[in-house]
Amino acid sequence: MDIVEQIVSGNVRATARLLRDIDDEIPSARAILKELYPHTGKAYVIGFTGSPGVGKSTLVDQLATRFRKEDLTVGILAVDPTSPFTGGAILGDRIRMQRHFLDPGVFIRSLATRGHFGGLTKSTNDMVNVLDAMGKDVILVETVGVGQDEVEIANSAHTTVLVTIPGMGDEIQAIKAGIMEIGNIFVVNKADREGSRKTIRELRNLIELGAKRRNGDDWEPPIVETEAVKSRGMEDLHEAIRNHRSFLLSTHTEKWREVLEKRARIQLMEALREEAFRTILARMEKDGNSFDLMVDQIVEKQSDPYTLVQEIIAKEMG
Amino acid sequence: MDIVEQIVSGNVRATARLLRDIDDEIPSARAILKELYPHTGKAYVIGFTGSPGVGKSTLVDQLATRFRKEDLTVGILAVDPTSPFTGGAILGDRIRMQRHFLDPGVFIRSLATRGHFGGLTKSTNDMVNVLDAMGKDVILVETVGVGQDEVEIANSAHTTVLVTIPGMGDEIQAIKAGIMEIGNIFVVNKADREGSRKTIRELRNLIELGAKRRNGDDWEPPIVETEAVKSRGMEDLHEAIRNHRSFLLSTHTEKWREVLEKRARIQLMEALREEAFRTILARMEKDGNSFDLMVDQIVEKQSDPYTLVQEIIAKEMG
Repeated sequence: MDIVEQIVSGNVRATARLLRDIDDEIPSARAILKELYPHTGKAYVIGFTGSPGVGKSTLVDQLATRFRKEDLTVGILAVDPTSPFTGGAILGDRIRMQRHFLDPGVFIRSLATRGHFGGLTKSTNDMVNVLDAMGKDVILVETVGVGQDEVEIANSAHTTVLVTIPGMGDEIQAIKAGIMEIGNIFVVNKADREGSRKTIRELRNLIELGAKRRNGDDWEPPIVETEAVKSRGMEDLHEAIRNHRSFLLSTHTEKWREVLEKRARIQLMEALREEAFRTILARMEKDGNSFDLMVDQIVEKQSDPYTLVQEIIAKEMG
Repeated sequence: MDIVEQIVSGNVRATARLLRDIDDEIPSARAILKELYPHTGKAYVIGFTGSPGVGKSTLVDQLATRFRKEDLTVGILAVDPTSPFTGGAILGDRIRMQRHFLDPGVFIRSLATRGHFGGLTKSTNDMVNVLDAMGKDVILVETVGVGQDEVEIANSAHTTVLVTIPGMGDEIQAIKAGIMEIGNIFVVNKADREGSRKTIRELRNLIELGAKRRNGDDWEPPIVETEAVKSRGMEDLHEAIRNHRSFLLSTHTEKWREVLEKRARIQLMEALREEAFRTILARMEKDGNSFDLMVDQIVEKQSDPYTLVQEIIAKEMG
């Protein structure tokens, strides 16, 4: 069996190897991704985003358990160096997460690539595709923060869950300013904490404000209160996700098609951006066009990045 | 006077116009950036990164006041939709920040671009260059979160300040996992809060762990306790920044050169990545190569992103 067949039949070892190759940017991985692509499109992708400390991993962990009860297989991608799924947390959390490691119906992988120039969004999309081709029914993607990468990752999910906790007023502002439109479901985790009512009220106001821009056919994001460590609210969250999925699939709107188009566009744009850059770097190397030399020229003020880039483009894309 | 001369002589209106053009990706902005570049390299760039709610804006606000006392001019770039500098906060904050708006020695601008594909890092570097060319002595860059964009923005600063608050254990884990190496100074803000000693102890342990990898010549990040809203700790932070600058400039190491090379490399790579993508998109448009059509092909499963990208590269970069 070749690697594509192995992955499609759910082989964990082959899948893990491909994901590592993607992370390491091994060129052969792309040929495999291409062959895997026809096997994608069956998984339901759910993104979780929010600041460190709001409890995204615990929510994902609990939801994975919930989906397993329905006998759905689950893929988890943690784009977060702090994720307990990858050992970036205190021991108790790690042990708790490990119950899934014994379950063949759950595949967990983290993406902690740092220091690369871009490529995080691209890798995430590729890895979602791999878990999809591998046959996972549900893919849970955990991302940290409210940065641009996170927004793009969220855009490539079918349902995006924005997670916050009471008492983070600035988070509410972030939601207001930029990421309101990407949240399909809002979770107030650690809802037993002081300030919970206020946070929910603020979110509700934002949703009502947004309602003026939405038309009647649009989805109104629900607010779900949870205490993930106690499993409280998980049924509500599960139901909210199911409702959003039903909404997308409902026949009287074009929502499902819109989501598919949005995902396709992001994957195409990101793959193109990455490949164009890679192609130029490869040509530069072949031509002996040295980056180090150019960096020196900039530092010595003999040239500037704008001029050098024009020269590179003219030469390598001529 | 042309626009380059106007900006170099500190004209606020011309500068604001150029920054807007950069944000809107107006092609003519690049020619101006190129001409401005020889006027850059004088400013000292300080990056502030940390989650929403840790008080970065207040720190930046207070530090700006501190630098003004030395008669240094200040540029502030907030890469953060929640920043009070740009109205994304409660009224009291906004009024407090506005004292700087009356001071011609301070230039404030926010970058809240969302939904673009990449380009945030690139724009930030370009905007730092503009404020540098405009003659600002110190440039304070505020970024939110711990995403990849933030890491790269931090990499393009001379001094990077990582801001946290007591009781965010997951943040400490984030610092441990990925961003320890980019922090030159750690700030525990809201240090009057419960858990402050514990947070400082955890940070100290991380710094000691890191010390084993550092050699004797290396900088040991200090931990500064602040209560920015009360101006407490600002002298310590100011001193820590001055110390780090002196360390970089000290003659017995190559640190300053290293920082300049790192900044030059990031600017070159990001500018190249952006320009290669832009060039391809322009050629596609010229050739009537339709993105929408390709998106449809992906959605209909007639093709896949990997194959389409190969075709585009072959055609447009042939």
